[in-house]
This record gives sequence, structure tokens and C-alpha cells, in this order.
Amino acid sequence: MIRALVQLKFATLGLLAATACAIADPRLLLSPDDVALIRAELDPASSFGRSVAETRAKVDAYFESTPDVPVPKDPGGGYTHEKHKQNGIAIHDAGILYQLTGDAKYAGYARDLLLAYAKLYPTLGRHPVKRSSTPGRLFWQSLNESVWLVYAIQGYDAIADALTPKQRSTIERGLLRPMADFLSVQSPETFDRIHNHGTWAVAAVGMTGYVLNDREYVQKALYGLKRDGKAGFIKQLDELFSPDGYYTEGPYYQRYALMPFIVFARAIHANDPDLQIFDYRDRILLKAIYACVDLSYAGLLFPVNDAIKDKGLDTIELRYGIATAYALTSDPTLLSIAQIQHPYVLTGDGYRLAKAVDAGLSKPYRYRSKVFRDGPTGEQGALVVLRNGEQPNQQALVFKATAQGMGHGHFDKLTWLFYDNGQEIVADYGAARFLNVEQKEGGHYLPENESWAKQTIAHNTLVVDERSHFGGDLKVAEQHYPELLVFESRDDIQITGAVMRDAYSGVEFRRTMALLNGIVPDHPIVVDVLNVDSKTAHQYDLPLHFAGQFISASPALDARTESLEPLGTADGYQHLWVRASASVDENKSFSLTWLNKNRFYTYTALGQDGFEVLLTQLGANDPSFNLRHDQALVLRVKEARGQTFLSVLEPHGEYNGAAEYTIGSRSNIAELRRFRAEGADIIRITTTGGARHYLALSYDPRADVTHKAAADGRDFEWRGYYAVFDRSGDKR
Amino acid sequence: MIRALVQLKFATLGLLAATACAIADPRLLLSPDDVALIRAELDPASSFGRSVAETRAKVDAYFESTPDVPVPKDPGGGYTHEKHKQNGIAIHDAGILYQLTGDAKYAGYARDLLLAYAKLYPTLGRHPVKRSSTPGRLFWQSLNESVWLVYAIQGYDAIADALTPKQRSTIERGLLRPMADFLSVQSPETFDRIHNHGTWAVAAVGMTGYVLNDREYVQKALYGLKRDGKAGFIKQLDELFSPDGYYTEGPYYQRYALMPFIVFARAIHANDPDLQIFDYRDRILLKAIYACVDLSYAGLLFPVNDAIKDKGLDTIELRYGIATAYALTSDPTLLSIAQIQHPYVLTGDGYRLAKAVDAGLSKPYRYRSKVFRDGPTGEQGALVVLRNGEQPNQQALVFKATAQGMGHGHFDKLTWLFYDNGQEIVADYGAARFLNVEQKEGGHYLPENESWAKQTIAHNTLVVDERSHFGGDLKVAEQHYPELLVFESRDDIQITGAVMRDAYSGVEFRRTMALLNGIVPDHPIVVDVLNVDSKTAHQYDLPLHFAGQFISASPALDARTESLEPLGTADGYQHLWVRASASVDENKSFSLTWLNKNRFYTYTALGQDGFEVLLTQLGANDPSFNLRHDQALVLRVKEARGQTFLSVLEPHGEYNGAAEYTIGSRSNIAELRRFRAEGADIIRITTTGGARHYLALSYDPRADVTHKAAADGRDFEWRGYYAVFDRSGDKR
Repeated sequence: MIRALVQLKFATLGLLAATACAIADPRLLLSPDDVALIRAELDPASSFGRSVAETRAKVDAYFESTPDVPVPKDPGGGYTHEKHKQNGIAIHDAGILYQLTGDAKYAGYARDLLLAYAKLYPTLGRHPVKRSSTPGRLFWQSLNESVWLVYAIQGYDAIADALTPKQRSTIERGLLRPMADFLSVQSPETFDRIHNHGTWAVAAVGMTGYVLNDREYVQKALYGLKRDGKAGFIKQLDELFSPDGYYTEGPYYQRYALMPFIVFARAIHANDPDLQIFDYRDRILLKAIYACVDLSYAGLLFPVNDAIKDKGLDTIELRYGIATAYALTSDPTLLSIAQIQHPYVLTGDGYRLAKAVDAGLSKPYRYRSKVFRDGPTGEQGALVVLRNGEQPNQQALVFKATAQGMGHGHFDKLTWLFYDNGQEIVADYGAARFLNVEQKEGGHYLPENESWAKQTIAHNTLVVDERSHFGGDLKVAEQHYPELLVFESRDDIQITGAVMRDAYSGVEFRRTMALLNGIVPDHPIVVDVLNVDSKTAHQYDLPLHFAGQFISASPALDARTESLEPLGTADGYQHLWVRASASVDENKSFSLTWLNKNRFYTYTALGQDGFEVLLTQLGANDPSFNLRHDQALVLRVKEARGQTFLSVLEPHGEYNGAAEYTIGSRSNIAELRRFRAEGADIIRITTTGGARHYLALSYDPRADVTHKAAADGRDFEWRGYYAVFDRSGDKR
Repeated sequence: MIRALVQLKFATLGLLAATACAIADPRLLLSPDDVALIRAELDPASSFGRSVAETRAKVDAYFESTPDVPVPKDPGGGYTHEKHKQNGIAIHDAGILYQLTGDAKYAGYARDLLLAYAKLYPTLGRHPVKRSSTPGRLFWQSLNESVWLVYAIQGYDAIADALTPKQRSTIERGLLRPMADFLSVQSPETFDRIHNHGTWAVAAVGMTGYVLNDREYVQKALYGLKRDGKAGFIKQLDELFSPDGYYTEGPYYQRYALMPFIVFARAIHANDPDLQIFDYRDRILLKAIYACVDLSYAGLLFPVNDAIKDKGLDTIELRYGIATAYALTSDPTLLSIAQIQHPYVLTGDGYRLAKAVDAGLSKPYRYRSKVFRDGPTGEQGALVVLRNGEQPNQQALVFKATAQGMGHGHFDKLTWLFYDNGQEIVADYGAARFLNVEQKEGGHYLPENESWAKQTIAHNTLVVDERSHFGGDLKVAEQHYPELLVFESRDDIQITGAVMRDAYSGVEFRRTMALLNGIVPDHPIVVDVLNVDSKTAHQYDLPLHFAGQFISASPALDARTESLEPLGTADGYQHLWVRASASVDENKSFSLTWLNKNRFYTYTALGQDGFEVLLTQLGANDPSFNLRHDQALVLRVKEARGQTFLSVLEPHGEYNGAAEYTIGSRSNIAELRRFRAEGADIIRITTTGGARHYLALSYDPRADVTHKAAADGRDFEWRGYYAVFDRSGDKR
């Protein structure tokens, strides 16, 4: 009865809104002023002109025959799913083209599709595919329905002045209001959720509110169904980003989540300028856009947590993001990001961005070493990026000391990734998923995402007793965070470190990672010191998922040539074939050299008592052939209490196949040693030239405390967490 | 005693030559006129100007400290090897820069290095690394020494006018003549060999002859040590290329062999214009250059036989080749190839090429379907390329019905490769080698090149009883060639086929491959019909080395999840892990779908009696981790006499990760059938839409003979090898 009343009220408002809408401006991401400017100025040979022409060609082809509006049937990747997605975008694109070109045929295209949906939508119950806990009507999950409406409402907004009152009324009553109602009052579990699905829902409903001139939709979108601010867009801005603009699920979902934030904020900016939405929370949305760029390498986002690895800066989300950020800042370094994107978004911001690029105002983006704190108040660990220079292809080390990142988080506390020369060198598997490929579990996450990709062994961090962090239990994992101990970026050294106390009962581990220049020619080396502390004995594994072609190992590995068996039975170990193994004596070094693109990499690890190395290859227990056949090195100490893994990664030399030469294919690191001195570690790195370098680690975050240690026949004295000493013992 | 006399005579001539050389022109690839023109016109902002500037920067950096001229010690990839290679190129580059810039410091750089070598060279015996049957003195193999001299003599030629008579004499007596003598009279087994090593040797010695004005060197280079024409450059031109310009070792070595052919021919052209060397044998060198381009895809050469897969059009050899070909033809489509090369060669031809590109004269290269006959007279089989259009990223099918190709040939008669969308889809392993990487067998071919890469199972062709063609015996293999039966290129169908009679005793096989348009949307399909004929029963395997990610198979494959074992014990089978298998009933179809980049591919094969499919992965019995982990599908018939493998490959759909959509991930091919009718095959292809298409094959090469067949309830009548019929039975 209450619902009936509410719907009636909406229906009445709908009529009013339709009348109000007769003033007919586009009022979302494109304003009448934008349209007037673009129509007056547009040069077909300009970048924006070409983007318009491409969209026009695409839309012309799409509408050559009348688009099908099928009864929903398929899950993601299936025909009806993809067709409805395409239709939603086509409504948007045709509407925008009508505004930008003035050609009435585009208004007609969008109108006919909207009318077809207005006819279909009221006939639909829940989607027949029962796979989602939040099903839609057009789509198997309501998320897609929100996305659809975000596009379609923009198309409707753009053609409203070309519709008769009756057509407007038909579309609003048959489609826009029922869909907005379905996504809001009828789906409170999504709409009021502080989650990216919630952001899509509030964006869809809020933008519909602006276009229909219905403040109730807008208020609910901004402040939740109860309009009390405990849910809705503002609350999402408060909770979903850290103070540094980091989104807790990681860069892949940060990009995805960004889209509704940006487009809705842009619509709020146009319609409710007094809210000063882009200034909110110390310009949090701007920080979030910049964070995406900072959390990328060679144009692709760091694939921590569930992440499809081909996602990067050239995605629709970041095309909107960069256009908006440039509109807000006029920062010329953003133009260099726009230059690796294509095409420009067809908005006023997109037009101004393209114009600035064409005018040659672009400056290179300055990639920086940076800490991205995690959690709403920044107190739930951090993602740290160390970069050896501002260029996009220089070395970058990613250290993941974040919170769990909700259901898409991986059990990989204190893992790391390494990039160099435009390539992924020490890798993260990302997600096990073929997005939208129907044959692969309908395009959803694969079973191997749980059994492999999320497990600790799939990452470059400590595994105790072949069990994943927190026993792989999300609820437990969400309650604990690493503590960041150090971050410093100097010319000669960049260093970070963190401690994790609760991943395993009774085992604490601390990891310190540094990019150290001046040790070997041309490149920095990575120094990795992982201290494990426990009162009881355990097996410790430290995997290194290296990307490239195996070149050599010393001591040589004993290869399994005649049969392969899995490394273990659970927590991801069941997926690893053991290809080879070797024992390494205490204080001897093990080294592995591989080739990636045209550069060599050598990983050198210090042997321990009972130290073993394993070479593995992914693919065991994979009945549906879902996994890639990536390789890994696993350092293993079979039984120990306290334990320190010390290793160094060196980029070196050059392989040039086209010009037929190879130089520097062997590592310049001759030996590693570690001296223990009163809670501190003195790391000695000896090069093949005989030079000795020392890295002293007190592990004490206090900058003003002095530490002394005697080791290797010398005395060391320094303040703070770390210091570097050269051969003469002088501190650098 | 005779040698001593010869050397004395050479030494005397050397003095004379040094005097003659005082006329001091560059007389090889750069002429005084070229130099005058370039100096007069050169714009630093032009493409050629940038190439000069880059070389200048490289040379300036190289000579910042005096280059080391070490005593030879290392094999390929080692320090002394790479250093000598670099020095040879540095002598060349510095000399050319002296000419182009007039800056005397560059002459000084080249002079000092040449003098250092004139001091070192006389002290050298045979190289200490005993790995080659044709060792050098500076290098472990004399081949590198020839290459070195080809560079160094050009540098010497360029700076001769800046040297004192005494310096010239020192360099000629200490270095150039001893080296030329070493490479010619002292290495007859290489110099007089009709082989690419011989071409390098004659080029080095012949060019030295021109510069020293020593006709004896020139005559030997052109006509062999005995000057009787039974060896030497002219004989090499006769024998090493087929009439179509195909080099029997395959494209990878064709490119490599091309360099000395081009540079020596260019020097002959300048010094002995009456020889009309570029017109020789119906312009055979020009054909050979074009053949390299025609035998490439997406800029990389087809990797048949021993081939490093990163070699392509942007190599030094083809930079010289395209510059020369453009000088001879002014063909504007060559400029589009120059545009994917960098930098320009610093010759007169290079200058004119760059100028033409800068002037915007470039037109797209027109890739064509083409037969490249093999053998000196073109009667030893052929390499056939079928292309679905002129663009570089369109479908290309390579059918290898060539001769063996000498020692670098693979045992892969009637194999095929397939390219699409800029990617390798059906692959050849290429060579098992890490060029110049010292840790990998000193950079030479790996043992797995013999045990895997050359073996038949490593290719996409028939293996009988798990043995390679010709039992893997090179001597036997060199005596037999396939016979090409058909080649035709029409808009709707392109077809080729060949028969191989002697690869196995008592087993003959014939393969027909077609690119067929109009069956499925957007792309052609590949139809593959392999007929095997034998009077006795054998096991037949047909591998498909597919590149991309496994998506699905139907019927489903039974995966080995808990352990892997090799497929066999010899002839490459020992390197394949069996990952899965399935049985397929007679007249049922097996299909495998994979994803490569953003496109799907489905391979559909017709089941037979006793038909099995195996999914394999490379890497068994690989103790040094030398092999990539490529996958393959193997179609197997365990025991049969006559046998026909019928299969179809379809490119379809699109995966777009960045824009998050997938379309057409399932094949449009529903069913295959084969009807046998009086020596002919009628192939029926049924699409998922229900359309039936027929390919009739008489296998009769005679174009004018009419064939009739009754099959599938219809009558078919056609002339020649093949015909295509649509649903109604009408011939297309």
C-alpha cells in the first residue's frame, strides 16, 4: 500500500517533470554553452573533430538496421546482455551527436530505442539468469542496469527537446522512472551500500533526478534512501577513498568505481554548484583521479587484488577522469595522459582537453614515489610506490601493505611487484577471469580465482606452513592491517617497510624494500629483507613470480624431466607443478637470471640453514585450462623459528636480437651477507668488481635515535631506520 | 713455400695499392658525389639528419674513452667477441661520419682503432675457443671476421685521405691484407663455398680489393679462388636464390645472407659498372629484397626453419636492402617499409630514401598472395603465401612445400602457419637459441634445436609412427622435394596444395589448403584437407601449434590434473607433456576455441574411426630450461592405412578488455563432413545458421579436365583441381 502510494506520487511527478523538461537543455556532462561553443569552433581535422567523426561512423553503422531490443535471457557475454549494453551506449552516443551536430536523425535514433525500451521494460520481471544476489531486469545483475541508465539518461537528456510531450511521458513512465525506482527503493541493499555497485546506482538515479527535475531522486542519491546521509553519494565519498585518494579494492576497481563518481559529480557540479562537490573532502575526487595515474605503469594499472591485467589509462573511466581533472586544474602534465587515450569523451571537458592537446600544451606526467594510505582515515596500511625517476618506463617497485580490500582483496600482505623497461618483471597474477567470455563461467570470476589467484602463494610474499594469510578467511582478514614503518625517497636510495602481525597466529613478519642506486652500472638494485619472527618452528616459503625467459641458475637446478607433480594440495599449492629444485648452503648465494624483452634480471638470495629453492609452473589441477602457465621461484626454509630472507634483484645488460648483440648477460652482484647486530641487520653487498656496500637497518622508525653496530670487522653508526655505507665505511 | 711466395707477392702489391689509394675517394657505398650532395643539402631536422645525429651521439659516446682492443678470448656473447664487433662497427661509423661532417676527429677515431688492430692482428693465431669448424682469429668463427672486415674496410675507405702513406701502409700490411688473405686463400673451404658464410667472405675480400685497388682480390671474390667462375659471388647469385628470389634456408637466413649480397653488389655497381650486377639473372637481387618483405607479417619474417622470431624488416640488412631497392626502382611502396625502419643507413642510397619519405612520397606496400619457388631453377618445391588482402595485418597463410633448406632446414614438409590481426595464430617454434647469450650454450643453437625445433612434431604437419620426416636425416632430406599441385588466388577463394612422396617410406601425403571467404561473417576460414595414402597401417599425428589462451573444447578434454608425463621418447615427442585427451567419434566434430589478443579462433576437425585428440605442453626433458612452454593440439589416428584429416580454422568475434565487451566468442561452424567420390573429395561445411557450403576437390592439377561426383544427394560437376558450391548446389 505504501509502495503503491509512492509509485503514484512518482507517476504524478513524472508528468510534471516532463513538462518542466520542456526547457530542454542538456544538463549533465554537456551544457548548452558547451554545445554552442563546440558547434561554433569545431574543426573536423582537430583531435576532438576526429573523435566526433569516429563516434558518428560507429553510430551510423549501428543504426543502419533497426537495433534489436531482445527479451533478456543471457548472462554476461551472451547475446541479449551485450545487445542491451550496446543499445544503452548507442542511446547515449546518438543523443550527444544530435547535440554536437544538430542532425535530427540522431535524435530519432535515440528516441526510437528509448521508446522500444519503454515498451519492453514494464513487461519484465527479474532476469531469468539466477546467478547474482542483486539481479536486474534487463541484465542478470542490477549493476549493469545502473550502468545502462547512466548512459541512457544522458542520451535522453540530450534529445529531450526533440521529443513530443507524449513521447517524453511514454519514456519517463515506461522506462526512466520504473528503472530509477527499481534501482533505488526496490533495491535498497545495493542503493544504500557503501560500495562501487552503490555508486553506480546513486549516479544513475541522481542523474535521472536532475533530468526529470525530480529532487527526491537527487536527494536519495546524495544522502541515501532515508536522506539522512548515512548512505548515498556523499557518504561514499567519505568512506570509499582514503585521504590520499586510494580506493581500498585496488587500482583496477578504483578505475571502475571512478566512472560513476566522476560523471555524477560532474552532473552535480552543473546542477547543484553550491555543493562544491569537487572541493569536497580536500578535493578527494581529484586525488582519486591522480591516484589512478600514479598507480599505473606503461599505461596499465598495477594489478593488485582482483584485476584484469589489460586495464589501464586508456579506458572510458579515465578518459572521463582526465577530462574532468584537467577542467578543474589546467595541469598540463595531464595532457600527456590524454595523449595515450583515445578517443576524447564528447563532453565540454573533453572538448577543452582535446583543444589543449592540439595546441601543444602537453608536458610529461611526472611519475613520483608516493605512499597511498588505505582506509577512510588513512590508518589501514598503505600501498607504496617507489619510482626510479619520473619517466613512465623507469623502474617502479610496488609494495602492498594495504588493508584487505573487501571481497576482491587478495591474501597478499607485504607482497611486491617490480616493473622496468616498460615491462612487468616481478608479477602479480591478477584475477583469474575472462571478462564477458561466456564459455568461461559466463565471463565471471573463475573457480581458480579463489583457489589460486587470491591465495598467498600466488603472490610475492611469505607463506607459513603452506597456508594463506588469515587462513584465507575474508572476515578475519578485514580486521587486520599492516603497519607502515618507513618511507623515504632520496636520489641514491628509496626505501619502505612494514610489519604484519596477524596474518598468522604466533608469526610476525616485517619486510624492508629499497631501490638502491650506485651499486651496479646503469640501474638501481632492489634489496629485499624479510624478517620472520616466531616462537615455534614453521616452514617458510617466499615465492618470486618472475616474468621472462629462464636463462640460468647457480647452483644449477635439478630439473624434473620425466614427470611433474603438484607442490601441495591446498591454498594454491595444488596448482603448482614442481619443475626443479636445489639446496643452497648457509651463507652461499643462489642466483637466478632471466631475460625479459631486451634486458636481463638476476635475483640473488642468501642461503640459510635448510634452504631450498623450487622452480614451479602454474597449471596443475586445472581441469578447464583456466590458468596461465606462469613460472615462479620459491625460496623455502623447511623448519625454522626466527628467519630472515635476504635477496637482491638486479636489472642488467642488453639483448638485442635485431642488431645481434648481447652485453652484460651476467649479474654484477657477487655475494650477499647479513650480519646480525643487536636488533639491527647489516647487509653487505659485494659486486663482481670487489666493491662492498653496506645497508644498515635498525628497523626503528624514530628518525632521531642513534644506532651503533659492530659487524664485518667495522663499526657502523647511524640515525633512524636505515643507512647506506660504502666500501670505506663512510655513510652516504 | 708456395704460401710464403704468395704472401710476399701480396705484401709487394700492398705497397703499390697504398700508393694508388692516395687518390682517396670513398668508393664503396658512399661516393664523393653523394658526400658533396649530402653536405650541401643536409637539414639536421630531416629524417636523414636525425639518423646522422644519432650515429654521431653513439660514436661520440663510444670514443669518450679509448676503446679496448682486447686479445681474443671469448665465444659469441662474451666480452672480447662483443667488443671486437662493436669496434668494427665503430670504425665504419666514425669513417662515414668523417665524410658526412668533415670533422677530422672522426677520422682520428677510426685511424687509431685501425692502427691498434694492425698491431694486434699479426700476433694472433687461431682463436682459442675451439667450437667452429671454420675458426677465425679475432673471432671464434671466421664468419664474424668476414662481417668485421665488411664494416672496417668501409671505415678505412672513408678515412683513407686523412691518413699518411705510412699509416696506410701499416694498416694495410698489418690488418687488411692479412685478414683478406686469411679469409680467402687461407680459408678456401669457406671462401669457395656456395653458402651465406661464403658470401660474407667474398664481400669482405672483394670490397677490400676495390679499396686497395687490388684486382686479384676482386677477381677471386667474383669468380672464386681459381677465378674460374665455379665459386665466388656470381656463382652464389646463380645458386643461392631461386628464380623468384627465394633463399633456400628460409626468410631468416635470407635476410642475413642479403647483407653481403647488397653491400658487395653496391660496391661492384660503383667500381665495375659494366658488370651490371643488379641486372644479373633477371634482377635477382631486387627479387630477393622484395621477397623478404613479402615473406613477413606485422614487420617480422616468417620463422620457418632455424629462425630467431624477433627478426624482421627493421634490421640492418633490410635497411640496406630497401635503400638499394628504392635506388634501383623508385617504387614508392618501398617507402612505407622504410617508415617502419630506423635509422636510415648512412649511404647515398639511404639519403635519397630518407628524402623521399620526408617528401611524403610513400605509398602502402601491397602485400600479395604469391608462390616462391625453391631451388636454383625453381624446381624444388615452393613456399606459398596466401593473403586475404593487401594490408599488413590481414589474414596470411604460409604453406611450406619447400626443399630442405640445408643444415638449418626443419623436417616439416607441407606445414603451415597462420597469421591474423597482427598476431601469430598457428605458430612455428622457430629456432631453439638465445642468440649471443653466453649462458645458453655460448649463444649458439641449443641441443633442443635438434631434439625439438627441427623435428616434425614441432610443426603443423603429418607425423607417421612418431618419427620425423626422412628419419630426421639431412642427407636424405636434401634429395627430395614436394610437388606443388595448385595455386590460385581469387576474391572468394585462395587455394594451394602439394604432395610429398618420400618423407616416409611407403606413405604419401597430399595437403590442400584454402582461404575461403563468404562462409562466416567478417573473416575467411581456412580449410585444410590432408590425404594420407599407404598400403600398410600406421599411426598418424597431425599437430596444431596454436597461439593464445585456451577457451573451450568440444567434446570436453579429459585433463591430467595430478601428474604429467611425456607423450613419447624421441623425435621431439619426449619434450611434450600430455595435458589432456579426448576421443572423437567418426563423423562427429571436435572443436577447440582459443583467444589471441582480441579475437577468437576455433579449429574444427572431423572425427574418424579411432580418432583421438591430445593437448600438449612443451617442456618435458628440458634439463636446462631452454624451451618455451608452448601448447599444441595433436589429432591422432592410432592405426590406419588411407586417412584424411579434414579441419577448418575460423577467426571470429571480439574480446575487448578495456571497453569490457565480448561478442561472437562461439564459432559459426556447426559441422564438417567429407564425401568420397571417385578419387575426389566433397567437403561439406555447415554453419550454425544452417547454411551448407561445398568444396569439391578433384586433386587434378589439369585445368581443363571436367570432374563429376554424386555426394550428399546432389550432383557436382567442375573443371580443374577444385570448385566451391553454395547451398543450392550452384558453383561459385
